[in-house]
This record gives sequence, C-alpha cells and structure tokens, in this order.
Amino acid sequence: MSSAFTLHPQIIADSIAVGDLPLCHLRLMNDAGFPWLLLIPKRAEISEIIELDAAERAVLIEEIATVSQVLKSLTGCDKLNVAALGNMVTQLHIHVIARFKGDPAWPKPVWGQVPARPYAEAVAADLVSQLRILLSIS
Amino acid sequence: MSSAFTLHPQIIADSIAVGDLPLCHLRLMNDAGFPWLLLIPKRAEISEIIELDAAERAVLIEEIATVSQVLKSLTGCDKLNVAALGNMVTQLHIHVIARFKGDPAWPKPVWGQVPARPYAEAVAADLVSQLRILLSIS
Repeated sequence: MSSAFTLHPQIIADSIAVGDLPLCHLRLMNDAGFPWLLLIPKRAEISEIIELDAAERAVLIEEIATVSQVLKSLTGCDKLNVAALGNMVTQLHIHVIARFKGDPAWPKPVWGQVPARPYAEAVAADLVSQLRILLSIS
Repeated sequence: MSSAFTLHPQIIADSIAVGDLPLCHLRLMNDAGFPWLLLIPKRAEISEIIELDAAERAVLIEEIATVSQVLKSLTGCDKLNVAALGNMVTQLHIHVIARFKGDPAWPKPVWGQVPARPYAEAVAADLVSQLRILLSIS
C-alpha cells in the first residue's frame, strides 16, 4: 500500500489546480455559479480533520483563514461558507465558498442545489492567476 | 452598543446548552435525527472565522477536534461533518455533526433535508450528561 498523496479522481474532475500551500493543495471548483475553493491536505488516506495531528491542524486553520481572506477580498462576498463534509468523496477536503445574497443557492448551502456551470476557460485562468498572486504561489 | 457575548435567539430555540469550553459555548442541536453539536465562540458580533485572531483560531480548531473526537467515540459514526455556514443565523457557529450511512439525509448535507425531530427530554439530558463527562465540563 502506497502512502503517497494522490488526489481523488472526482476532485480532479470537478476542480482546477491553483497551487500548493505548505499543508494543502488548493483548487478552484469549476463552477461559475460560486467562487469556491478546495483545500486538500497533502496527506495520504485521511478523511477527517481529527486524523491530522495538532501541529497540522494549526496550519490548516491558518490556511483556511488566508484563503478565506483572499477570497473575500477578491469577490466582496456577503458571507463565507467553510466546510469539511466528505460524505461522498472521502478524501479530506475543506470547502471555502464565497456566498452572495441572491446567488443561485442563497441562503441554502451550495451542495446539490444547482448543477455546476463550468467557467469559460479564460475566466478560470484569470481567477487562478489572481489567486496565485494574492496567495504568493509561484 | 454592548460588546457582551449573547446567543442569537434562533440558536437558543434550536439547541440545548451543554456547557462552556475555553473559547466556545457548546450546544446540542435538538434534533434526534442526527447527533449534532454547535460550537459558538464567545465573542460578540462576529460572523466569520477570520474575525477571530490567530490565537483564537488555534484554540477553535482544537475545540473542534476535541468535540469531534468525543462525538465520534460516543456515536461510532461513519463520518464527521464540520461546517461554518451562517447564511441565515449570522452569529459565528460551527456545526459538528455525526453522520451515518443511512441516516435521514445521507449522503447529502443535513441542512434543510428533513425537519428537526426534537429529542425526548430524558434522552437529551442523558446525551448532555455524557458529553459533559467526556469533555470534563463541570
């Protein structure tokens, strides 16, 4: 059994790579309906926050905060939604979602409300580029 | 304007007090459909994790981990769901929910799926008592 970090195929299919933070791989969900990021701790075969050790959790919460702040600055959103669910894709991943009053799912949670509407390629590339600059990802 | 910590009336209406951790007030959602806890940081008028400072966030993630571990031990759940949403009740509160394959909402998120089914009073009291013992809340 390998202990290397690999991404779940569903995460790869649903999202676009932004880059790497010290603990987490960061991805943009390919859904133009919501500015929506995924933080995936680069640890093999874990599905719960409590499977990280305390030092890793301390890094995780600060990466969540950093990404939240950048997403809020970039979008001017009304609310952030932060969640680790994983009922269907068990690989630990944390959703950080910019919500707007009047967005397609507001005020409900985003999951399962409306089908994903993929970004135009140039729009996604621009958003990824801005995120990389704001997060100092080289 | 007072800066004292007070609970949002909707949180009081929907849940039962368990007790206090150093940062958060802990409550049991009054829904027998899901073992479901709320952590409410005892800070006035904040709605986002990023409104806590870094030291508070470090405590928050460990309180989330402690409560998650206790809920998992107590219930033997298949999955934990951890989320800070707050689209309707803006006071910052973190959901920690024990999920089971085959529970009334599985595999969807719990919010808005099935109406809350209040606990029998003795069942809730017993659960609160067990939580207080496991969390060393006096």
